[in-house]
Amino acid sequence: MARYADLTTAELEEELAQVRERYSEMQARGLALNMARGKPSAAQLELSLPMLDVLDSSANLSAEDGTDCRNYGVLDGIPEAKRLMATLLDDAPDNVIVLGNASLTAMYDAMARYMMFGALGSEPWGKLDAVKWLCPVPGYDRHFTICEALGIQMIPVPMDENGPVMDEVERLAAEDAAIKGIWCVPKYSNPSGVTYSDETVHRLAAMDCAAPDFRIFWDNAYAAHHFSDDPAEQDTVLDIAAACAEAGNPDRYLKFGSTSKITFPGAGVAAVAASPANVAEVKRHMNAQAIGHDKLNQLRHARFLKEGAGLAEHMAAHGALMKPKFDLVVEKLESELGEAAIATWTSPRGGYFVSFEGPEGTASRIVGLAREAGVTMTGAGATWPYGDDPADSNIRIAPSLPPLDELDAAMDVFCCCVKLAALEKLLED
Amino acid sequence: MARYADLTTAELEEELAQVRERYSEMQARGLALNMARGKPSAAQLELSLPMLDVLDSSANLSAEDGTDCRNYGVLDGIPEAKRLMATLLDDAPDNVIVLGNASLTAMYDAMARYMMFGALGSEPWGKLDAVKWLCPVPGYDRHFTICEALGIQMIPVPMDENGPVMDEVERLAAEDAAIKGIWCVPKYSNPSGVTYSDETVHRLAAMDCAAPDFRIFWDNAYAAHHFSDDPAEQDTVLDIAAACAEAGNPDRYLKFGSTSKITFPGAGVAAVAASPANVAEVKRHMNAQAIGHDKLNQLRHARFLKEGAGLAEHMAAHGALMKPKFDLVVEKLESELGEAAIATWTSPRGGYFVSFEGPEGTASRIVGLAREAGVTMTGAGATWPYGDDPADSNIRIAPSLPPLDELDAAMDVFCCCVKLAALEKLLED
Repeated sequence: MARYADLTTAELEEELAQVRERYSEMQARGLALNMARGKPSAAQLELSLPMLDVLDSSANLSAEDGTDCRNYGVLDGIPEAKRLMATLLDDAPDNVIVLGNASLTAMYDAMARYMMFGALGSEPWGKLDAVKWLCPVPGYDRHFTICEALGIQMIPVPMDENGPVMDEVERLAAEDAAIKGIWCVPKYSNPSGVTYSDETVHRLAAMDCAAPDFRIFWDNAYAAHHFSDDPAEQDTVLDIAAACAEAGNPDRYLKFGSTSKITFPGAGVAAVAASPANVAEVKRHMNAQAIGHDKLNQLRHARFLKEGAGLAEHMAAHGALMKPKFDLVVEKLESELGEAAIATWTSPRGGYFVSFEGPEGTASRIVGLAREAGVTMTGAGATWPYGDDPADSNIRIAPSLPPLDELDAAMDVFCCCVKLAALEKLLED
Repeated sequence: MARYADLTTAELEEELAQVRERYSEMQARGLALNMARGKPSAAQLELSLPMLDVLDSSANLSAEDGTDCRNYGVLDGIPEAKRLMATLLDDAPDNVIVLGNASLTAMYDAMARYMMFGALGSEPWGKLDAVKWLCPVPGYDRHFTICEALGIQMIPVPMDENGPVMDEVERLAAEDAAIKGIWCVPKYSNPSGVTYSDETVHRLAAMDCAAPDFRIFWDNAYAAHHFSDDPAEQDTVLDIAAACAEAGNPDRYLKFGSTSKITFPGAGVAAVAASPANVAEVKRHMNAQAIGHDKLNQLRHARFLKEGAGLAEHMAAHGALMKPKFDLVVEKLESELGEAAIATWTSPRGGYFVSFEGPEGTASRIVGLAREAGVTMTGAGATWPYGDDPADSNIRIAPSLPPLDELDAAMDVFCCCVKLAALEKLLED
C-alpha cells in the first residue's frame, strides 16, 4: 500500500473492493461499541469506590469550622472543599466558590446571569442587539449548546498547537464590541488535546477588547488528567488569574472545574474560581437561587482527596488506565492509516480525546459507516458551532469508556471506515 | 391581668414597669437562642443517619434499569427516585423530573427560564414591559427574593384560613395580563400553617387569567410534614394537577418539592412535577444546563425511603420531635399573651412555622427587643414582598431548631418582648 494520492484509478478501485469486503465482514460481526462520549470506564470509577465509605453514619459530619454539613447553609462551600477545589483550579481558596455536581451547570448559569444581569454593572447582555462568542474549533459541543440555547452567536476561530490562533482572536475581540468572550479548555483541550502556550495565555489576558466586559470562560476540565505520573510528561498551563491581574484585566476570566472525571461523573463537586469582584457578583446572584450546595458531598470529596494533597496520586491511577487506550488509538491510526496518508490526528499527553482530521467531506460518511458497523462515534460536526464543520473533516475519538479489547475492535472498524470513505471520495472527484 | 385594651393609663404604666424589669432580668442572662429559620434540629437529622450507610463501596450502584449511577447520564432522574418524588408530589413518575439538592434552585431556574425563553411558546417574559406576580402574605421570604432578583413586581394578596383570598386573586389575575403567576405553599403554608381548601385549589385551577401563560408555582415544601401520624390529624390538599386538567388548564402549574426537611437539608433531592408539555419544555432547556443530576444521591434516597413506601413512617418520627415544640409555642403564647388579648397566632398541624400577629406597628420593635435579649427571630417584614409589612405586625416563629429547653427560654423572652412593645405602643398612642 502507498499514499492514496499516488494511486491510479484502477489501484484505488482495487483497494476499495478490498476495503469494502473487510467492512462487510466487520458489519457481520454485530458489534455494539461506543467511542462517543468522554465517560470514564468502570475500572476508573472503581478507583473512587472507597470514597463511599468516607462518610458513614458514625462519621464526624462537621466541617472544620464546625458547620454541620447535614443542615442548611454555607453558600460558597466548606473550607476543606474550597482548599480541594483551589488545588485543582490553581487558585487561592478565598477565590473559590464550591458548587453542585457539574461545571457545565456552573458555566450555563454564569452565562445566563450575564444575559439577565450584565457583568459587574454592564448592560444585561440579553438587552443588546447581538451577543457573540469566540469558539476555538474543534471544540466542546456542550459549550456550543450553551451559547445556542441562550441565543449567543458563535464565531469559530481556528486552533493550532499553541491554542486558539491569537492573531485571529485579537483581531476579532478588538473590532467587535458584541463579542463578549471566548471558550477556552486550556489544558488537554477537548478534543484536540492541545495545551495553551504561555504566550497564548498572556495574549488572552492582555489583548484589547472592544467589549469592556469581555469574559474568558476558562474550563479547566482536564487540569489534573495526565496520562503519566512523571511531571516531565505532563503539560502545564500558565495561571489565567495571574496573567489577567498582571495585564490589568483582573476580572476578565472565570475558571471552571469539577471532580467529574476524578471521582464520579454526575456525583462530583464543581467549582468556579474568580477575582474578588467576580466572586462577590456570583455570590450575590446565587443568593437568590440557592441556600447552599451539597456539603456532605463536599466533605466526602475533601476527605477522600485529602483536600487536594491526594489528587496527584489518585490521578496517576486514572492515567495508568487511560494511557494504554490512547497508545492503542494512536498506534492503530498510525498502522492502519499512516501509509495511506489520508488523515491526521493528535497524540495528547492527557485529557479525554483524540482529534481526528479525515479527508475533506468525509467525516459524516465515516461516522455513518461506523454506526452501521456497530460503532458509535461522536457525531460529525459536533466539534463545531451549530454542528456545522464546514470541511466535514473533524471527528472526536473518545477512547476512555470501552475496555481495551473493545477499543481495539472499535478502532479497526473506525480505520476501515476512514479508508472506505476516503476511497469513495477520491474516486468520486 | 386583663385585656390591655381595658387598662387605664396608670395600669398600663404599672404593667410596663413590671415587664421592663422582667425584660432586664432576661437580658442579663446572656442568652444566645435562635428561632429564625426553618432548620431541622440535630435530633431530626439523626433520623436520617442510616441513609449514609445505604451506599458503601460494596453496594450495588446500578439503578433498576441498569444505569451505572457512578457515571454520566440520565437528565430527568433514575426510575426509583422518580417514584419516590412522585409519592411526595402526589403525581405519576412520568411527570416527575428529579433534580439537584434544592427546590429553591428549581424554582429560581424555572422562573429564570420563563424570563429568558417564555412559556410554551409565549414571548420571553424578560422582553415584556412588566412582569407581575401574586404573593399571598404572609409568605416565604426566599420566594420573594427570587422575584426581586429577576425584576418581577410583587403584588401581595391576603391569606385567610382557606389559602389566598380567592376573590382578590381572581380579580387581579383576570384584569392584568402582566400578572404571570402566583406563589403557593398549599399545605402547612410558610408561615401561616394554612392548608388550602378544596375550593381554593379548584378556583386557582379554573380562574380566568388575562395572561394565557399564567403559572402557579406550587411549592409543596411540607407535603409530608405532619406533626401527628394519625391521618385524622393530618391536613390533605387537593391535587393541583388533576384540578388544572379538569378545568381545561393542564399546563398552568409547576409542582416543586424536595427531601430537604425529610433527610438532610442541602444534601437532599429536589424534583419538579408538571404536565407532559411542561416536563418536555423543562427538559429541553435543562439539556443545555446539565448532563444529569447526582444519581448516587438519588439512589441513596430511593433505597432509604423505600421509593416512597417508607416516607410516612420516617415523617412520623419527625412529627414526634416537632409536635412538642409547636405545643410549647402555642401554650406559651396562650398563657403569656392570651389574657392581654394583644396578639393572634396560628396553631398548625404540620409544617415548620407559627405565624404571629402582634399589635400594628410593633413587629420590628419586638424582633429588635428579642435580639437585644439574645433571641434571634426571623426579621420583621420578611414575610412580605420587599421586606415591607405595611402593618409591621407579622412575625414568623420557627421552633424546629432549638431543643425544648432552649425553645422554652426563647419563648419567654419573645412573649416578654411582645408585651413590652404592645405597652409602649398603647402608651404612645
